[in-house]
Amino acid sequence: MPITVVGSIAYDTVKTPFGERQRMLGGAAVHFALAASFFDEVRVVGPVGEDFGSDQLEVLHHREVDVSDIERVPGGRTFFWHGEYGWDLNSRETHDTQLGVFEGFAPKLSERSRSSEVLFLANIQPELQLQVRSQLPHARFVALDSMNLWIETTRDSLVAAITSVDCVILNDAELRQLTGKPNLVAAAREVLSWRPSGGSAGARGPTVVVAKQGEYGAALITPEGFFALPAYPLETVIDPTGAGDTFAGGLVGYIAAHPTEELTDDLLRRAMAHATVLASFNVEEFGTDRVARLRGPEIVARIHELHAMTQFSGAPLAPRG
Amino acid sequence: MPITVVGSIAYDTVKTPFGERQRMLGGAAVHFALAASFFDEVRVVGPVGEDFGSDQLEVLHHREVDVSDIERVPGGRTFFWHGEYGWDLNSRETHDTQLGVFEGFAPKLSERSRSSEVLFLANIQPELQLQVRSQLPHARFVALDSMNLWIETTRDSLVAAITSVDCVILNDAELRQLTGKPNLVAAAREVLSWRPSGGSAGARGPTVVVAKQGEYGAALITPEGFFALPAYPLETVIDPTGAGDTFAGGLVGYIAAHPTEELTDDLLRRAMAHATVLASFNVEEFGTDRVARLRGPEIVARIHELHAMTQFSGAPLAPRG
Repeated sequence: MPITVVGSIAYDTVKTPFGERQRMLGGAAVHFALAASFFDEVRVVGPVGEDFGSDQLEVLHHREVDVSDIERVPGGRTFFWHGEYGWDLNSRETHDTQLGVFEGFAPKLSERSRSSEVLFLANIQPELQLQVRSQLPHARFVALDSMNLWIETTRDSLVAAITSVDCVILNDAELRQLTGKPNLVAAAREVLSWRPSGGSAGARGPTVVVAKQGEYGAALITPEGFFALPAYPLETVIDPTGAGDTFAGGLVGYIAAHPTEELTDDLLRRAMAHATVLASFNVEEFGTDRVARLRGPEIVARIHELHAMTQFSGAPLAPRG
Repeated sequence: MPITVVGSIAYDTVKTPFGERQRMLGGAAVHFALAASFFDEVRVVGPVGEDFGSDQLEVLHHREVDVSDIERVPGGRTFFWHGEYGWDLNSRETHDTQLGVFEGFAPKLSERSRSSEVLFLANIQPELQLQVRSQLPHARFVALDSMNLWIETTRDSLVAAITSVDCVILNDAELRQLTGKPNLVAAAREVLSWRPSGGSAGARGPTVVVAKQGEYGAALITPEGFFALPAYPLETVIDPTGAGDTFAGGLVGYIAAHPTEELTDDLLRRAMAHATVLASFNVEEFGTDRVARLRGPEIVARIHELHAMTQFSGAPLAPRG
């Protein structure tokens, strides 16, 4: 099923213990689209400025991503982020954020983008997520990401946006903050219990919660049960920027590529594995470099490795007592 | 194979968001022994003071733990720890530590304790760990825990102790601190490369590294490969005290219960699963309460659940590109 993603398209300047790179192609929609492009057709909706280059567009073109809804704003500047990671890559500091054309962003979806059966609302203002969501009322699968800023400043809108989607993908700390529940399972169950207020008959609220846990992997919580996967272990991580969006692209993309399957835990678990593997490639190099030249067989090989790394023989011995 | 454990036997006063308990039975050797007792015979070596009660000893007796090498020091006071956990249980503050009889502790192992084929050196001064290790030169499997204090104050002794054992069980942050390597896989590989200095022929250094990751689970790194397991998900965690030692007890105990098996990753992975399950019971109630009344079938049931929670179908689709 075709996927529409709405979110940021950015230039990132990133410093990690392994080096610094200036004005790389980045942004949530870009990282998501590149990852999802391995599974299905992706349509990107978002604004760029006049400074956005054709080389950058070519990275998306090369992965056959539909860029016709990338709006070039005359006289505008592309969203810019400048950040630096600490020695273990688990902490990061933002030195500068320039919203540029993102400041007055009002998503404009073409007929084609509105016709997608799968929608990913990357981390943008919840009001905009709701607005986009309403333009694809018949989408079969809708997922959403967000961040602490919106939890702190516009929580009501965020909760409304969450109740309008099927799948919530958040960092585990954000799930805790959002729900006020320090326990991850309890926090996820809380989100799964949310229903749209005054929603139409059949409106159901989210049925899938994915907690991203950074270097520790990710957990999946549904009414059916719990599943967790470690991150694919890497001896060298160069740049974690975009790992979460790449993960989301792998997850949502894999689901989109299975239109005839019910949204069972079995499907979701396989999607989690593909998400994990895509994210592992993303962090191996700066920006989009690694995923942009990734090939299918590399994904398949790493899926097999991840599978082997998470298996144990389930037969317990009879304990004493 | 019988297991000897050397470490603290303590009174713990613990405050968590769920309540406060005074002077409970605790200590690394106690938590370890209770968990390991589900798998094999356990012999505890450690000192207590005159204040140590028979009720506390009875908890160990009840699990058929051999307490004959628990030394009651005349006029002494039992090791005491007073700590408090933050709202999400991931941070903790120590209000008070009174070493008591632990201050001048010189481990005295009976012939019986020295005859064990498996040894666990709980978190004590590395010099003492080395001294105990030398008293069981023919032990078939030796594991060790430690903490940041020893990394900071007596790193050389700790490295010597590590090179004298088969298996190192540390928190992931401690592994990073110990090796100066921020990447977990790299840190573990570094430890696996350590060899005893001036060691006798055949002395080989550790072959198993287990990184405890708290609520995220644990990872196993050996020359054979990488394995990771999430923590068993619980909606209510009451008291994390002793979770790491309970984990170690499950791990080492399971290995001890399989004397005819080679120390392969297959065995170690099953041991990790049992360790994870034992730790999950430990945190469900204060102190040793839950594990003290745990029954074998409960362990078996949770192993099956953990297994079900970590499986995914490994067959990937053919990605586009």
